[in-house]
Amino acid sequence: MKSFRVSVHIVPRKGLLDPQGKAVADALHTLGFQAVGDVHVGRHLRIDTTATDAAAAEASVREMCARLLANPVTEDFEIAGVTAT
Amino acid sequence: MKSFRVSVHIVPRKGLLDPQGKAVADALHTLGFQAVGDVHVGRHLRIDTTATDAAAAEASVREMCARLLANPVTEDFEIAGVTAT
Repeated sequence: MKSFRVSVHIVPRKGLLDPQGKAVADALHTLGFQAVGDVHVGRHLRIDTTATDAAAAEASVREMCARLLANPVTEDFEIAGVTAT
Repeated sequence: MKSFRVSVHIVPRKGLLDPQGKAVADALHTLGFQAVGDVHVGRHLRIDTTATDAAAAEASVREMCARLLANPVTEDFEIAGVTAT
């Protein structure tokens, strides 16, 4: 078994309201950052795990996302990277 | 002015307690993912902005992080990517 660090992004599903992103965009405008357009706020998870290889580590994290970490109704997730540690 | 999409990771500063990450790790263990070690939970922001070039877009987002998005006492941020849109 080898050690891997897997990064995951969990973001609001496209087309759904993202009130937190809207609030951040409004606050940035108020601070003078007029060039800012849309802002999306999601979660970034870094999971240390052991697996036989990188593909197995990624598959295991996908299952974690589906079962616990992401809300399948409102959120999408993507594996941002798998690195051996 | 060109359009850029800047991705930012905001994570708990190293060495500080990350109670949310600990809770996620415990929940994953309970679900049977015994191979999981540490879990860190941070925020992932995707900011659409306009700037003269990619370096200016990144500099502007760094200033946003310092002034509003990240808590300088407890959090670190890193620019994960700048892409032209």
